[in-house]
Amino acid sequence: MVRELISLTPDLDKQNKSPLYHQLYAYIRRQIEGGVLRENERLPSIRQLASHLNVSKNTVETAYQQLMAEGYIQSRLRSGIQVLPMEKLTLGGSGITSGAEPERGEHEGARRDEPDAIDFEYGDVDRERFPVKAWKKCLADALNDRFDEVYGYGERQGHFGLRNEIARYLYQSRGVVCSPGRIFLSAGTQQSVSLLCQLLPLADRVAMEEPGYNGVRAVFANHGREIVPIPLDEDGLRVDRLRMCGAKAVYVTPSHQFPSGIVMPVRRRAQLLQWAYESGGFILEDDYDSEFRYQGQPIPALKAMDAGDRVIYLGTFSKSFLPGARLSYMVLPESLARVYERQMQPYSQAVSPLIQTAVYLFMRGGGFEGHVRKMRTLYQSRHRTLIRSIQEYFGGRVGIIGQKSGIHLILDVYGRSAPELIDLASRHGVKVYSPAIHWTDPAQCPESYVLLGFAGVNEERIGEGIIRLRRAWFE
Amino acid sequence: MVRELISLTPDLDKQNKSPLYHQLYAYIRRQIEGGVLRENERLPSIRQLASHLNVSKNTVETAYQQLMAEGYIQSRLRSGIQVLPMEKLTLGGSGITSGAEPERGEHEGARRDEPDAIDFEYGDVDRERFPVKAWKKCLADALNDRFDEVYGYGERQGHFGLRNEIARYLYQSRGVVCSPGRIFLSAGTQQSVSLLCQLLPLADRVAMEEPGYNGVRAVFANHGREIVPIPLDEDGLRVDRLRMCGAKAVYVTPSHQFPSGIVMPVRRRAQLLQWAYESGGFILEDDYDSEFRYQGQPIPALKAMDAGDRVIYLGTFSKSFLPGARLSYMVLPESLARVYERQMQPYSQAVSPLIQTAVYLFMRGGGFEGHVRKMRTLYQSRHRTLIRSIQEYFGGRVGIIGQKSGIHLILDVYGRSAPELIDLASRHGVKVYSPAIHWTDPAQCPESYVLLGFAGVNEERIGEGIIRLRRAWFE
Repeated sequence: MVRELISLTPDLDKQNKSPLYHQLYAYIRRQIEGGVLRENERLPSIRQLASHLNVSKNTVETAYQQLMAEGYIQSRLRSGIQVLPMEKLTLGGSGITSGAEPERGEHEGARRDEPDAIDFEYGDVDRERFPVKAWKKCLADALNDRFDEVYGYGERQGHFGLRNEIARYLYQSRGVVCSPGRIFLSAGTQQSVSLLCQLLPLADRVAMEEPGYNGVRAVFANHGREIVPIPLDEDGLRVDRLRMCGAKAVYVTPSHQFPSGIVMPVRRRAQLLQWAYESGGFILEDDYDSEFRYQGQPIPALKAMDAGDRVIYLGTFSKSFLPGARLSYMVLPESLARVYERQMQPYSQAVSPLIQTAVYLFMRGGGFEGHVRKMRTLYQSRHRTLIRSIQEYFGGRVGIIGQKSGIHLILDVYGRSAPELIDLASRHGVKVYSPAIHWTDPAQCPESYVLLGFAGVNEERIGEGIIRLRRAWFE
Repeated sequence: MVRELISLTPDLDKQNKSPLYHQLYAYIRRQIEGGVLRENERLPSIRQLASHLNVSKNTVETAYQQLMAEGYIQSRLRSGIQVLPMEKLTLGGSGITSGAEPERGEHEGARRDEPDAIDFEYGDVDRERFPVKAWKKCLADALNDRFDEVYGYGERQGHFGLRNEIARYLYQSRGVVCSPGRIFLSAGTQQSVSLLCQLLPLADRVAMEEPGYNGVRAVFANHGREIVPIPLDEDGLRVDRLRMCGAKAVYVTPSHQFPSGIVMPVRRRAQLLQWAYESGGFILEDDYDSEFRYQGQPIPALKAMDAGDRVIYLGTFSKSFLPGARLSYMVLPESLARVYERQMQPYSQAVSPLIQTAVYLFMRGGGFEGHVRKMRTLYQSRHRTLIRSIQEYFGGRVGIIGQKSGIHLILDVYGRSAPELIDLASRHGVKVYSPAIHWTDPAQCPESYVLLGFAGVNEERIGEGIIRLRRAWFE
């Protein structure tokens, strides 16, 4: 039963200094703690309560979110907003919040409505085999043994030892030769690109793969850059079109084009470098998931071929280690490193030294390389299972795009449209996504494309997910 | 004795794929581990070795830094570069590095040469009474109980519970009423300002206090903004001059002007708000150290007076809690919050969810407010000791500027010049700084000004430091 609205009538005071959402939150919380609202009881919808109380939906939503974060209520697809059992609550010290654990579903990007949904969200990585114990030890060691190191702002360019480990890793795994002095840490690839926008003020016009990663496109746009979309052919970015466009910088993902999955062959790489040397341009190489290649020989980074020092290498720990580390880095050409040191001299490092030192200890102890090897094997199995399940259950009704490497692929579900496919999937407890946001004009994305990330889903659930999709789409 | 150069002749190979610095580093390390280079033995200077080996000074420096970071050698002012005792080394697992603890002196901003120097560096905060145990527990709890929460990218705007705690704190301590929906977390105030530059593309011209915080000036400049310096009078920023300049955004530090220490009185605040309402401009209020006020009533934030919603409030945990958290936030006006949500939609949050969740737990448990109270008392004693020592030992030979609050002050050492004062201080084991970088044209800073931060120096060392300065400057 939904609680009658009349019983939820707090005395909200717009003159009160405490904001309305907070008054409403506190009121409902008192009702729950006082037993007026009981376990499993349903609360009115946001719209209903807002209209009943004559406040904005935003006010009600904020109050509800707060109650959810504190474990007083939960939101479920079929049962609406429900009061949680009180025994789950441990009333905390500050008086206003409880010690209850917010569920994963209440956090953005997670599954608010369907806790059992199989989510093929891109960007998820495996949680089950993450070396939690080793990572905890590294954090504890950083705090215990190196407190002076993790207390202050830290080195502007980033922890020296960590940069040194990254240099070693890049040399061994990506063929990139660089000194730690050329490595600059940042709190995510988007921050790297923002810093580059500040470094390259002359590059008013930047070129990007079309389609290409929308997260970076947004950074360029927000820095006032004119973005020239460059079409792809089967070898990736069309260098002939890049030549014509007059841009002095280009953003590319040669190891595994995002989102199309194209691996740029050596010949095209050479042409791209040639463009940079002839035009004096810079290439931003985003090597976001190169660790995960399952067929043939690993291809070195474009930066490894860059005799003329025009490639800016962008690396991240988000896919290979832990998104929650928020740790990325760039390798700058000598000329830009000098500009950086001069121009960014007053900038503090954005990554917490605690995280930096812990990752340093993890890499130094050999844990990182071992982890990448383990994840490569794991994702390879998941990749194989996904491809096989698709072939088995979908047969010729879909095409698979970009399946050579990485942790995602695109399905072309012939003759269908993404909104319909996503909706049907969702009704069957599966989340898939449209890749259209990665097109400058999303309408240009073929309607029949849906994107599946698979790194965060185990093999059993991958199989189950594809069976559900078959039911959703084809039965 | 300095090791004879001839004995340090590695076979450096420029054709080798391993960089020269790394070959040199590995060579010296082998010499140390093999006992060829012995404890306390002095290594040649960077210049000498570079010229001997015919490599760049940069190559030698990088190799030396690496060896220092790993605890093989140390650098001391009077004894040069020395080999450290081998028993201190625990050879680590990865084969290339050791488990030795790098000393604080090897990190940027720390005292590379003089480990006993008393450093009045601005930005340092107290380490001695930092609640290490409670902070470790919050981090451990976040990792143990909330692993799902700290694993992924986290909420784009920042952890909801943390934003809620910040909203409560701002209301109680700064009189600012805002919902968590208006709070946006960032990895430092510079990142906040960078995001604002991306949000306010129309504000080509921004006004700043002159003098004003150089860290923010650099961000504006690197985003291509024209910066209009607005002079101060005894009440802070001259609003009459702001009116004339045509800027649509102004950056101010009304609680404690940086670096001059002026506290902006209510009348001037009202004028400043009036400017914003009349011109449709935005005020960026950086409230960086408002927790530390020692005389009179606390003054609410400018944002607390902002009925017209034109103030962007910038807060940070760097001074009040831990610089190494790299955690700041902004409170956006409703209109900008909506623009942010639209324009920054593809942006990931830059602060690690681990840090966010741990700070949330710390605040929720009441630890943060207790810590701020403790630090306020502590810094008040240090402040009093500093003022008294200056009066006692320097008498009328100096003026004190901006002593009402905060964690720094400026000394006007009549008739002397900063470079001379800094050099003399350094010879007597004290570090003081010139505030000139905070002037648009550093030459405009009165030569006789030096800046002293005192939050990171205990009372005994404050007294000792001032005695040393008396010796250095006046005897």
